Amino acid sequence: MKFQTALCQMRTELDDALTMDKAEDMVRKAAQNGAQVVCLPEMFSCPYDNAYFAGGKARQRETVASLSAWARANRVILIGGSIPEEENGRLYNTSFIFNGSGEMIARHRKIHLFDVDLPGMRFQESASFSAGEEITVFDTPFGRFGVAICFDVRFPELFRAMARRGAEMIFLPAQFNGKTGPAHWEITLRMRALDNEIFVAGASAARYEGFSYECWGHSLVADPYGTVIASCDEKEQILTTEIDLDRIRQVRAQLPTFLHLRRQIYSVAE
Amino acid sequence: MKFQTALCQMRTELDDALTMDKAEDMVRKAAQNGAQVVCLPEMFSCPYDNAYFAGGKARQRETVASLSAWARANRVILIGGSIPEEENGRLYNTSFIFNGSGEMIARHRKIHLFDVDLPGMRFQESASFSAGEEITVFDTPFGRFGVAICFDVRFPELFRAMARRGAEMIFLPAQFNGKTGPAHWEITLRMRALDNEIFVAGASAARYEGFSYECWGHSLVADPYGTVIASCDEKEQILTTEIDLDRIRQVRAQLPTFLHLRRQIYSVAE
Repeated sequence: MKFQTALCQMRTELDDALTMDKAEDMVRKAAQNGAQVVCLPEMFSCPYDNAYFAGGKARQRETVASLSAWARANRVILIGGSIPEEENGRLYNTSFIFNGSGEMIARHRKIHLFDVDLPGMRFQESASFSAGEEITVFDTPFGRFGVAICFDVRFPELFRAMARRGAEMIFLPAQFNGKTGPAHWEITLRMRALDNEIFVAGASAARYEGFSYECWGHSLVADPYGTVIASCDEKEQILTTEIDLDRIRQVRAQLPTFLHLRRQIYSVAE
Repeated sequence: MKFQTALCQMRTELDDALTMDKAEDMVRKAAQNGAQVVCLPEMFSCPYDNAYFAGGKARQRETVASLSAWARANRVILIGGSIPEEENGRLYNTSFIFNGSGEMIARHRKIHLFDVDLPGMRFQESASFSAGEEITVFDTPFGRFGVAICFDVRFPELFRAMARRGAEMIFLPAQFNGKTGPAHWEITLRMRALDNEIFVAGASAARYEGFSYECWGHSLVADPYGTVIASCDEKEQILTTEIDLDRIRQVRAQLPTFLHLRRQIYSVAE
């Protein structure tokens, strides 16, 4: 199965209306370029700063409705990056996913929150958000996909579990930064792809110079051999790539790792 | 805890006596340079070709006795690369490990055999060898170490299990080749180190130009942040590195991944 995918590396603006117009525009352009599966970045709807996250239920409903409308209008599978989701007084970093009829077909709540204390990069996402509890895999006309969000990528068991559940391609809305981006972004995505012999697509936000959180950008797609087959810099752009899922079967036959796990010696996340 | 480690990137000769003299010489030089923990490459004692592996029990006993003598003579922990080990009519790709008194303190039999069918690189290790069944972690005066062999590195669960059992540094005698080496050697070792926030040292054989198996070389040490702190090219050499195990505690505090695994959501190899 071959299909076209587009990662919208979008810069979120401080003005909400501008941001939403831009997101709509990028999804439309991606579809016009031939994309059948489109992915927005993590927290595309508001600046990635704890001060901006509590937008209220009304705003959340509007954003979800917009994502559904964009998917339907453009007849694309839309992985809606992520937005703040409120439920029972708790806030989650959540990706809503829609089919080409605008129906919500999956929802991923970020499982691993970004609490780090590196030299020059301190962030405590758990001060604002609660952690998700569920692994997200869903079917589309193009194949079985998984979704994880940003820091989730640092946990190989999550990616193993999605692949064992049949995910052929995993989309990762993300916002690595100027510290962890150059150190870990590319090798981590490549290894999650290689270890599971699947496709991994990281859709980052673009860099917003001068904003408190310096986003790394560099959206990319890694193939089942761990090769980067599409990538870009830190600026705003739409990264379109053809995905050939037959490559999974080919790599798994040539280099049998995923199929040769020795489950009687160590447990494997399912 | 700080200590000096040396990876002996050695080229195996077609003449056994030359090979053993060279290995002894490299271990001695490494110790003279200050190394306290020395690691030889995979199959350092014979060419890496199925035609050479069946050396018989007598030769195996001699090689093991030599390794013990070199460890004792130089007062080093010696990870003896690997050699063919025969038991009950089966052959294993085995690493014997000795303390500074020459006592054998651990033995690792390669768990994952190198059976690949890549364009330009076909190899079926299982035609000659049987697979090991046990995870190898052991204590030394410098820290708790793990050992895996070459293709074992492609299975993240094995490294996770060693790290969960307390391994602070994992030694990997190896022989990646001209096909998989440039594609995967460095990123795989870096990610096993980063995912577990431990040290990983890959001791490759040096390249033997013109031999059937074109070894990649490029021995390296990756630290708990996934940074390569020592590396070399494909030629014969001793790669000496200072290891500071306190870096593990520091990285795990700054970037909590190993300590923040969500075991109620996915199983983790132990």
